[in-house]
Amino acid sequence: MSDDRDDRYALADQLRLPPGPVRLADLPTDATPVLDGDKAGGQRALAALGEELADLQERMYAHAYTGGARRVLVVLQGMDTSGKGGVVEKAIGLLSPNGLRITSFKKPTEEELGHDFLWRIDRALPGPGVVGVFDRSHYEDVLVHKVHELVDEPELERRYEAINAWEKSLVETGTIVLKCFLHISADTQRERLLARLDDPDKQWKFKPGDVDERQHWRDYQRAYETALERCHTDAAPWYVIPADRKWYRNWAVARLLLDALRGMELDWPAPDYDVAEQRARLEADSDA
Amino acid sequence: MSDDRDDRYALADQLRLPPGPVRLADLPTDATPVLDGDKAGGQRALAALGEELADLQERMYAHAYTGGARRVLVVLQGMDTSGKGGVVEKAIGLLSPNGLRITSFKKPTEEELGHDFLWRIDRALPGPGVVGVFDRSHYEDVLVHKVHELVDEPELERRYEAINAWEKSLVETGTIVLKCFLHISADTQRERLLARLDDPDKQWKFKPGDVDERQHWRDYQRAYETALERCHTDAAPWYVIPADRKWYRNWAVARLLLDALRGMELDWPAPDYDVAEQRARLEADSDA
Repeated sequence: MSDDRDDRYALADQLRLPPGPVRLADLPTDATPVLDGDKAGGQRALAALGEELADLQERMYAHAYTGGARRVLVVLQGMDTSGKGGVVEKAIGLLSPNGLRITSFKKPTEEELGHDFLWRIDRALPGPGVVGVFDRSHYEDVLVHKVHELVDEPELERRYEAINAWEKSLVETGTIVLKCFLHISADTQRERLLARLDDPDKQWKFKPGDVDERQHWRDYQRAYETALERCHTDAAPWYVIPADRKWYRNWAVARLLLDALRGMELDWPAPDYDVAEQRARLEADSDA
Repeated sequence: MSDDRDDRYALADQLRLPPGPVRLADLPTDATPVLDGDKAGGQRALAALGEELADLQERMYAHAYTGGARRVLVVLQGMDTSGKGGVVEKAIGLLSPNGLRITSFKKPTEEELGHDFLWRIDRALPGPGVVGVFDRSHYEDVLVHKVHELVDEPELERRYEAINAWEKSLVETGTIVLKCFLHISADTQRERLLARLDDPDKQWKFKPGDVDERQHWRDYQRAYETALERCHTDAAPWYVIPADRKWYRNWAVARLLLDALRGMELDWPAPDYDVAEQRARLEADSDA
C-alpha cells in the first residue's frame, strides 16, 4: 500500500477542470502536477500503484457478488495520438482482466446509427463491480459531429443535455464516472505521427486520414472546449490530463482511478453463510 | 524474446489430450511437463513470456487493421477452484487489455434461454485481431446439463455435434481455438475451498452451493470425459493442463497461447500508403 493517503485528493483538485469558460490553450500539456520527476521515476510511481489498484478492484468486484452496485467508468478522450490506447495498456493494464470491460468506440455501424447516439454507449457499460473503460465515447458525437457539421446546433444542444442526464443517472445508481481529457499540443501530435511513419512496427497505426483530421485541429480544440464546458457537472466532472509526457499521463489516470476506488472505502464483504458450518461440511466430505 | 523456439511444440505435444477413450484419473493433476522447477521459477518463467506475448498480440491486432482475420479464442474449463480466474489474472494479464475480450459465462439469462445454447457464446466471440477468453463456455451446456440431467441423451448428442461444427467453422475462418481443461484433484479442490473459508479476503468467493456441486464430483469427471472425448477434433483439440500447482497451470496456458501466436508467423503489416508522401504532408503542416 502506498503511504500517500494524505494527499488523497490533491491530484484530483489540480487536474479537475476549473469552472467557467474553457480555454484549452491556457491549460498546460506538458506540466506534471503532484508528481515531480522524470520518465523512470514516473514509470516506477505507476508500477507502485498496481498492487493497491488490483486489491481495491477486487474488493469492488467482491461486493457485486453480495449485491453491491458500485462500479467505475473511465472515459478517455483526446486528439489522435494523445494516448488513449497507451493509458489502457499501461495504466488500466495494472488491473486484473477479470473485473475489466474495455470498449473502443469506432465509427458507428448501420445498426447503431438506427438508434440515438447513447444507445451503443449504454450497451457497453460495465456491470456491477467492474471497471469499465471507454476508449473514445459518446463525446465523439459532439466532437466529430460538430467539427464536420454533421448535425445542427439545436441537435448539439440536445446532446449535451442528454449526456448530462445520462451521466447523472449513472452516478445516482452507483457508478463513478471518471472523465479524462488527454491534453496534448499540436507539436506533440506531429512528432508522434512522424514517429509512427518512421517505425516499421508502428506504421500500421498511421492512417493518411489522421493528417486530414489534423487540418481541423483548431476546430477540434473548440469543439472540446464546448463539450468540456457544457458537460462539466458535479456528478461527473472533467479532468484535464497534461499528456505530452506519456509517463505522467499514464500515472495521472491510474492515480485518479486509485483515488476514486479508495473513496468507496470498501472492506471485504462479510460472508452470508455460516463459516464453521461450511467448514464442517467440507471436512466430512473426506473424498468426494 | 525467449530462446526456446526449438521446443515450439514440445508443450503442446505433451499436454494435448491423447486420442481414444478419456480417463481423467489416468491423467496427472500435479505433473509439470516441460517446465522443471518450483513456484518461484515458474513465476519467473511466466513473467519471461510477457514481452513476446504482448508483441505477438499487437502484431495480430495490427493485421486486423489491414484486413486480417486471424484471432485466438482461449476456452477455459475446469471444476470449481481449478483456477480459471487465476489464469485470466496471471497469464492473460500479461497481454494488453487493448486486444483482449474476456467473457465469464454465468447462469444464462431469460433472453439467452430463449435461444439455442450457442447463441450467447457466438455473441461473445473476439473480433479480428483480438484474443478472446472464455471463463466457462458452451461446454457448461454438456456438463452441468448432463450431471443434473437437465437434457436427455439425444439432446446431448446434438450438442456435441453442434459444438464440433461451430468450432470447425471458427477455425476455418481464421480463429485458433485453444481449449484448456484445468485438471485438479478432488483433494486440491477441498484444500482450496477450505482456504477460501479461512481467509476473510476470500470468503466472498465461497458459496455453499460449491459444496453441493462437489457431491457430484465423479459425475462431473464423467461428463468431462465424454465432452473431452466427443469434442477433441483436429480443428480444435483439447489440452489437459495439470492444475494442482498454480504456477505451472498459469505458465502452461500462457505458453500454449504463445506457441499458437508464434505459429501464425505474423510480421508487421506493410503500410498501404506512401510513407514519404505522408511525411511530406506532415512536415508542410508546420502548425496545425
